[in-house]
Amino acid sequence: MNNLVISLLTDFGLQDAYVGTMKGVIARFAPSALVIDICHEVPPQDIQRGGVLWASAVPHFPPGTVHVAVVDPGVGTRRRILAFEAKRSIFLAPDNGIIGYVCQRKEIRRVIEVRRIEHFLQPLSGTFHGRDIFAPVAARLATGLPLEALGPPRKSYLRRFLRQPSVRRRDAGGKKITEARGEVVFVDRFGNAITNLRPLEGQNLLEVRAGGFRSSRLSRAYGGVKKGQAVVLVESTGHLEIAVSHGRADQDLGLKLGDKVVATWAATSHPR
Amino acid sequence: MNNLVISLLTDFGLQDAYVGTMKGVIARFAPSALVIDICHEVPPQDIQRGGVLWASAVPHFPPGTVHVAVVDPGVGTRRRILAFEAKRSIFLAPDNGIIGYVCQRKEIRRVIEVRRIEHFLQPLSGTFHGRDIFAPVAARLATGLPLEALGPPRKSYLRRFLRQPSVRRRDAGGKKITEARGEVVFVDRFGNAITNLRPLEGQNLLEVRAGGFRSSRLSRAYGGVKKGQAVVLVESTGHLEIAVSHGRADQDLGLKLGDKVVATWAATSHPR
Amino acid sequence: MNNLVISLLTDFGLQDAYVGTMKGVIARFAPSALVIDICHEVPPQDIQRGGVLWASAVPHFPPGTVHVAVVDPGVGTRRRILAFEAKRSIFLAPDNGIIGYVCQRKEIRRVIEVRRIEHFLQPLSGTFHGRDIFAPVAARLATGLPLEALGPPRKSYLRRFLRQPSVRRRDAGGKKITEARGEVVFVDRFGNAITNLRPLEGQNLLEVRAGGFRSSRLSRAYGGVKKGQAVVLVESTGHLEIAVSHGRADQDLGLKLGDKVVATWAATSHPR
Repeated sequence: MNNLVISLLTDFGLQDAYVGTMKGVIARFAPSALVIDICHEVPPQDIQRGGVLWASAVPHFPPGTVHVAVVDPGVGTRRRILAFEAKRSIFLAPDNGIIGYVCQRKEIRRVIEVRRIEHFLQPLSGTFHGRDIFAPVAARLATGLPLEALGPPRKSYLRRFLRQPSVRRRDAGGKKITEARGEVVFVDRFGNAITNLRPLEGQNLLEVRAGGFRSSRLSRAYGGVKKGQAVVLVESTGHLEIAVSHGRADQDLGLKLGDKVVATWAATSHPR
Repeated sequence: MNNLVISLLTDFGLQDAYVGTMKGVIARFAPSALVIDICHEVPPQDIQRGGVLWASAVPHFPPGTVHVAVVDPGVGTRRRILAFEAKRSIFLAPDNGIIGYVCQRKEIRRVIEVRRIEHFLQPLSGTFHGRDIFAPVAARLATGLPLEALGPPRKSYLRRFLRQPSVRRRDAGGKKITEARGEVVFVDRFGNAITNLRPLEGQNLLEVRAGGFRSSRLSRAYGGVKKGQAVVLVESTGHLEIAVSHGRADQDLGLKLGDKVVATWAATSHPR
Repeated sequence: MNNLVISLLTDFGLQDAYVGTMKGVIARFAPSALVIDICHEVPPQDIQRGGVLWASAVPHFPPGTVHVAVVDPGVGTRRRILAFEAKRSIFLAPDNGIIGYVCQRKEIRRVIEVRRIEHFLQPLSGTFHGRDIFAPVAARLATGLPLEALGPPRKSYLRRFLRQPSVRRRDAGGKKITEARGEVVFVDRFGNAITNLRPLEGQNLLEVRAGGFRSSRLSRAYGGVKKGQAVVLVESTGHLEIAVSHGRADQDLGLKLGDKVVATWAATSHPR
């Protein structure tokens, strides 16, 4: 059982030595674990962005991975640290709701509160639990420590998740119209505006509206249109995304986090 | 043949989870591969900068490395993805010319178009081929999949490369003078301005000119001159570089990408 | 003895390919070494910040690690490169004093000047010793090359370290008061201002003063107070830190590198 994978998601950034220190601790306790950075540039204490990033990456990791998320405004307080068994993997995170972005309630098979201090570094600091708790506990899980050795089982825990779009259906001249009102939940490095809307199965897109932007067409790729033209496409986690070919939707269209986005769909007619 | 190396060069940046997701996929398909980041901060879709960075790093990797470059303005369009066998290594990149920075035509022994979808992730997105094609294909190559299993051989492909300096020779009072007109092709983190000029074998530098800057001396190192003084040196890939000791050539001398740089050389006289 | 660890600390940043190139070299000479990044975002040539970061991370790495620091304003000049045996590990750094942040003089058991060019890359550049000297030498140390094979032993070397607080003791109405005058030596990504002051054993904090900020209480964690309130706490390397709960001490309190910080303590009275 060598080469167990530990993934790390934090808001530590890379300009300090916090992440490197966590990896030093992991190398001490699990020298053959493969540590993979999901992202360390989560804006400080931004649980939503951390959760969205976590959700986009986790499904592509091998089963058995220990996924660690340290976006932790409550470090050093009485907030709990939890270990979740779900999706044939383990998730280690503060009890601040971030797990909700990645796992549905029914997918979570076990929840353990991480409390057994013999698995922590000593002395335990009040400010850097990434180093003192998350890193050594992840390392021990990766080398076979059973989950229940970490502390008692828990039933309740916090779950946050993206606000879901509101959906209205109406009849327009015999046509069944569905209108979904969502928002921009993420702007990536390329300025692409990713929404919480998904394509509707078996429906045709009539229109996407966001600010002054309007489009009635779903493109397959950024390159499918002329340079500078805005497009709507289904991005890599299955959501609608507004992008500008060779440009930036955030700057060129003025889109930003939280902006309303409305998608209207018509049921496909199946003549026969 | 364990510990095969996969190198990654992308324009994904580190603030999102794109790179981490690619590594998750690689860990699934090639758990013992060693993944090394060459750079992920290539400016979006900047093939020249990506190419220059790739060219500077690749010669220092072990033979057998699978080098992956995802700077890919055409993602999701009909642009081809190619795998090149060259320099005892494999190069995987979109057919957008970036290979030209790293390999001369005569060094490329085989070109395969990457088309066999059984080696891709399914469903294949239109926006994230780094995850869906490049990562799994690189992983499979690193675990021994032969190149020809990826698709049909190709003869033609795009090659871009740095604009080469224009060179003029003239006679000045019996002295053979060579003047090479090049440009700044790269400004690095330290503000050093790297050119496409190289030292001329067996010639003495008479002068380097760029904007208002003039120098008649090749230094060996940044530290060889007084603080704040500008120097010309041969940088680590063999090109002429203009730097400022303990300063920044971009800010202190106003140099920027594309600025003209002229170097004049005189043939060494060998009296006898 | 597989999986030897090499840690890297540099001021190369991640926007160029310098770090990736070093890792390519290491992969060539020590394919099974585990390379861990401590930090690459040390501001160019900032030996103090590099030293503070190095000191915070190093104690958490496994014994036997080869720790490499390339913050090297003197690259290419006659400055020496030294290898230190200390703390059951090896430290490789330019002779510019950075070792002093990490090791006390009495902890250093051996000092070797790195001079044997057969362990360097050839041709040796004058600008990128990270690639040409540090990487191959670290790799060879990680695969068992004895320290003395690198060059001759040295007795003298440069040591820098943090300016230490000045301490005054006085008697105030029978109470023994200690006043320590230090400064802000580090501001991290979260805007926390870390000082060179430490808690005094067996003493109670009377007050911490920095600019207009005053506090008489040591908190255990960021979350222990109300949002927006400033706190003094003992951070993860044992120093006093001024932070703002859910805020930034640098912006909210105007604290910056070098600002004076004064802590006053009273001896605990032990009635008996």
